[in-house]
Amino acid sequence: MSAERVEVREKVLSANDQIAAEVRDQLAGHRVFTINLISSPGSGKTMLLERTVDLLKGSLRLGVVAGDVQTRNDAERLERHGIPVRAIETGGGCHLNARQVSESLASLDLAQTDLLFIENVGNLVCPSSFDLGESLKVVLMSVTEGEDKPLKYPAAFRRASVLVLTKVDLVPHLEFSTETAIDNALSVNPDLRVFATSSYTGEGLELWTEWLSEEVSACKRDS
Amino acid sequence: MSAERVEVREKVLSANDQIAAEVRDQLAGHRVFTINLISSPGSGKTMLLERTVDLLKGSLRLGVVAGDVQTRNDAERLERHGIPVRAIETGGGCHLNARQVSESLASLDLAQTDLLFIENVGNLVCPSSFDLGESLKVVLMSVTEGEDKPLKYPAAFRRASVLVLTKVDLVPHLEFSTETAIDNALSVNPDLRVFATSSYTGEGLELWTEWLSEEVSACKRDS
Repeated sequence: MSAERVEVREKVLSANDQIAAEVRDQLAGHRVFTINLISSPGSGKTMLLERTVDLLKGSLRLGVVAGDVQTRNDAERLERHGIPVRAIETGGGCHLNARQVSESLASLDLAQTDLLFIENVGNLVCPSSFDLGESLKVVLMSVTEGEDKPLKYPAAFRRASVLVLTKVDLVPHLEFSTETAIDNALSVNPDLRVFATSSYTGEGLELWTEWLSEEVSACKRDS
Repeated sequence: MSAERVEVREKVLSANDQIAAEVRDQLAGHRVFTINLISSPGSGKTMLLERTVDLLKGSLRLGVVAGDVQTRNDAERLERHGIPVRAIETGGGCHLNARQVSESLASLDLAQTDLLFIENVGNLVCPSSFDLGESLKVVLMSVTEGEDKPLKYPAAFRRASVLVLTKVDLVPHLEFSTETAIDNALSVNPDLRVFATSSYTGEGLELWTEWLSEEVSACKRDS
């Protein structure tokens, strides 16, 4: 990468960090626990959110900001579950940035939100470099992607606090060791909390939503 | 995106295009048919290449340039199949560029190569913008990723000449319509040639390798 390009990249990241800090302050002011979901395309971010929303919407006030390169498909799927959703179409952009999130928040009632999900663009590389002002990052990985992904794409796993392994109902049909995959993830980031889930059968979703509820409570207490 | 950032991006793309044109000339000079494989992480690029190499190495002289964000895992898997492999570790970079490919070619014997595979970084967004001097792009999509991916990540499907649908052995365990997925891909790019494959069962690999062999023959005739 040329010196000029590195310099521009640093300026862009630094401008992004400044807006992300403002977003973080804004969310903290309203005690909104916010997670930034990162994964490859097709790892099951939207389906996990659909199931999670159904399990939690009776007890928590939820919101979603859904990013996509093109189409509003994900946002439309989530809107059907009766919660406020804002779509961001990046028009080719490979990750969300803090400005896009900040603009989306302007039309959400944060005073009436306990838990906000930001569904990033499907990409296991670029989104992990951009702070969006979230409370923490959650990386998803489908069992169909193979056990080695944490080693090959370490930044997303290193910067996340939580790994949600998805589609575990397919394990019997694959040559895939859940234990090896989790070992690989922990070798990159020993502090990762891991949930093994299937949005299809519901396996693991109770533990995942209990954890989310506890984090929301802690966020209310700490703020 | 700021005007300054757009300008730098254009400069980078134009510098890349110039090197890509040189790579293309070099490959044409040796009549090497070259494909650039693009997909999400975990779509099965490496496993498709392993099977393809085993089926073709008796009749064609093969080579691979294997890109990864981190690790040389893919290159090492392919080397076991007894063909020349060059690894490119991008160290966080989200796509291969023409300079990296050009440098890798310096140590490959192109005069002794009929068919060269370039396995791009696992990313369905960024790699599609960077010409590597290939004969054509092949986009892979696993059936586990869902039918809507061509609509949500259209650039990769628009710029590819071929779609290889992978892991079709898993369809009976999924809510996935192969027909809808292919219709979506063709709606983005009506000229796409489509192969439905399973590297696990071998389904579809004969048609895929026959097509590759025909393209290699055409490349020899036309050059």
